[in-house]
Amino acid sequence: MASGKILVAQGGGPTAVINQSLVGVALEARRFGQIGHIYGARHGVRGIIDEDFVDLTQETSHNLELVANTPSSALGSTRDKPDAAYCHEIFKVLQAHQIGHFFYIGGNDSSDTVRIVSQEAQAANYDLRCIHIPKTIDNDLVGNDHTPGFPSAARFVAQAFAGANLDNAALPGVYVGVVMGRHAGFLTAASALGKKFPDDGPHLIYLPERVFDLNKFLLDVKTMYERHGRCVIAVSEGIHDASGTPIAALLAKEMEHDAHGNVQLSGNGALADLLCEEIKAKLKIKRVRGDTFGYLQRSFIGCVSDVDQREAREVGEKAVQFAMWGSRDGSVAIKRTGFYSVDYELLPVEDVAGKTRVMEDEFIAANGTDVTDAFRMYLRPLLGSGMPDAFRLRHNPVAKVLHK
Amino acid sequence: MASGKILVAQGGGPTAVINQSLVGVALEARRFGQIGHIYGARHGVRGIIDEDFVDLTQETSHNLELVANTPSSALGSTRDKPDAAYCHEIFKVLQAHQIGHFFYIGGNDSSDTVRIVSQEAQAANYDLRCIHIPKTIDNDLVGNDHTPGFPSAARFVAQAFAGANLDNAALPGVYVGVVMGRHAGFLTAASALGKKFPDDGPHLIYLPERVFDLNKFLLDVKTMYERHGRCVIAVSEGIHDASGTPIAALLAKEMEHDAHGNVQLSGNGALADLLCEEIKAKLKIKRVRGDTFGYLQRSFIGCVSDVDQREAREVGEKAVQFAMWGSRDGSVAIKRTGFYSVDYELLPVEDVAGKTRVMEDEFIAANGTDVTDAFRMYLRPLLGSGMPDAFRLRHNPVAKVLHK
Repeated sequence: MASGKILVAQGGGPTAVINQSLVGVALEARRFGQIGHIYGARHGVRGIIDEDFVDLTQETSHNLELVANTPSSALGSTRDKPDAAYCHEIFKVLQAHQIGHFFYIGGNDSSDTVRIVSQEAQAANYDLRCIHIPKTIDNDLVGNDHTPGFPSAARFVAQAFAGANLDNAALPGVYVGVVMGRHAGFLTAASALGKKFPDDGPHLIYLPERVFDLNKFLLDVKTMYERHGRCVIAVSEGIHDASGTPIAALLAKEMEHDAHGNVQLSGNGALADLLCEEIKAKLKIKRVRGDTFGYLQRSFIGCVSDVDQREAREVGEKAVQFAMWGSRDGSVAIKRTGFYSVDYELLPVEDVAGKTRVMEDEFIAANGTDVTDAFRMYLRPLLGSGMPDAFRLRHNPVAKVLHK
Repeated sequence: MASGKILVAQGGGPTAVINQSLVGVALEARRFGQIGHIYGARHGVRGIIDEDFVDLTQETSHNLELVANTPSSALGSTRDKPDAAYCHEIFKVLQAHQIGHFFYIGGNDSSDTVRIVSQEAQAANYDLRCIHIPKTIDNDLVGNDHTPGFPSAARFVAQAFAGANLDNAALPGVYVGVVMGRHAGFLTAASALGKKFPDDGPHLIYLPERVFDLNKFLLDVKTMYERHGRCVIAVSEGIHDASGTPIAALLAKEMEHDAHGNVQLSGNGALADLLCEEIKAKLKIKRVRGDTFGYLQRSFIGCVSDVDQREAREVGEKAVQFAMWGSRDGSVAIKRTGFYSVDYELLPVEDVAGKTRVMEDEFIAANGTDVTDAFRMYLRPLLGSGMPDAFRLRHNPVAKVLHK
């Protein structure tokens, strides 16, 4: 039987609720008498290699609850992507500390780490239970209805576009908002939930699941601008042409000057700025503004879905339960059971690791620039309670006197 | 005596609470029996010229309350900056509709419009009461302790930096956040309120009130990075060198390539991207990220200060009271009377119009890269109740076993 020491770590990009999962593990583990110590590794797998552990058993439940409600990774994170040799080092440290259960909260890369460490332990005949706990704002883990962290980031994006739409209605023009998600468009698609009235933006949504054509884009913008006198556009940072070349790179080239020069073409404001320049130059629209949501969408404090908080806590709790009562390693997954309720299951890590989910076709409108009602139904309950709402003055026009 | 018709309009950039002032005017005006009609001009002064009026008297109080809680300008706004001829046209329309009271909610430009229209009416011996109602996220109106709209935008900036700091602590590196405010650094300075623990960011704050020196900046960043292993930086979009040249323009030139080429150097991501490139190139720091908060900081729905909401409502109410019970035109101003309470007074429009307030010296630390406690005391009550808070795990290290 596995020993009474557990180790938990957090990997990859932080989310608004990743500490809920950490605290879910810590508090649930305390309910099992056979668990003597709960260690946390600082800065993910890097902290394991460095034996940089803190003893979470000595935390108060009160402080754990406060940390649970704090965004970003309280233990620290890492971008290290362990290969087999790295995982072997991880395993050696786990062995030295007589860790019996290893919980790793993270996305794709983290699940792959769990997979390799699990294999190492089996090969060495060391009794280790390895559980991957899902987390990613990109919502790109297969086997999950959705992933913890995505609903809160989606809520930020929906609120950002609801506000940007109101701003754009007050001072009409074209607004381009660039959203995270290199391969999966879920977060960009969440912009659609910021829409209330039929003429609200976002009027156009560009996802990495569809090939981006610049001429088609300009025509779309022109059409919407003529229809509404304004246009709000949501763009995924991952848009690319048919060959897979990022649009930012293409635009920089097309503009025939060294726009953004040596400046990297992702993880900055280049795509938004270049698209805006293109619209100004080709469509002769004067007021064109672009924002790149950047880190705000994943790190802003005070924009969180209560559904996401609850589920992130639960995946942590369930991970411990699966580990203590179950007989195999795995990856905790969220299954939707009703509108709206969920349950959890333990998938084989191999089913999750190294795979990327993208938006299902049924979620993307036929025209390629909008989402479907199926997507709206999918996402709405995840955003949680207390979503801010926008209202308008009713239109009671006054008759003209001077210019009748 | 002035007629029983009033006209209200909204100008300049929208804020989170500008509709509170609109609704303050509309609801307070209904309490005066002699006011028969409350008109709203759509899209600011542009709507006056175009006689594009809606009758707010026909609104329900319930819908007005819902609109009050909706950010951005419900009547629409404009960037038109009226000159004397434009103001004459405004006056002609007010005269034709027998408007007796004109309320204009806006910043510097709007107060100047009120000043000129007021003079036009006096010259024509037309009985018109003109009141300017303050609004600007820049907090740059003289004669005011602060301006409605600023507290909510400041809250967004503080929350954004609180979150960015947590993200940066989890995945250490350098983070640059560029904040609005061309001449006044109040909004950028609000980033300091996102700080809780002594080693939290923002570690450096650059305001337009101080001359920006690139070498000094790089040295500051290097020092902080060495001290904390990371560095979070708040930068005003308005930073400039001793000659007043914007830093984005200087950097583009210094990098000796056409970075951002024909792309405009303000109102986009250029400054953040160029500063990040500079840090990477000169300090050899690998993980450097920049965000430009852009429109999010003024239009995000769901991040609002309740103090700001209340005061924005009150300036609207007081404007009507000053108009109905007073005997002169003016600009409503907020005066701080306690820690924390305010009262309102009517300043001569001439005292406000065409002037720009910048941060007082007592608010800026001697080193030029931080704010003072005086500023923290000034801003904290404005942010309102329910500010999200960040907590940390307490440090209970576990002894190393392998690498003792």
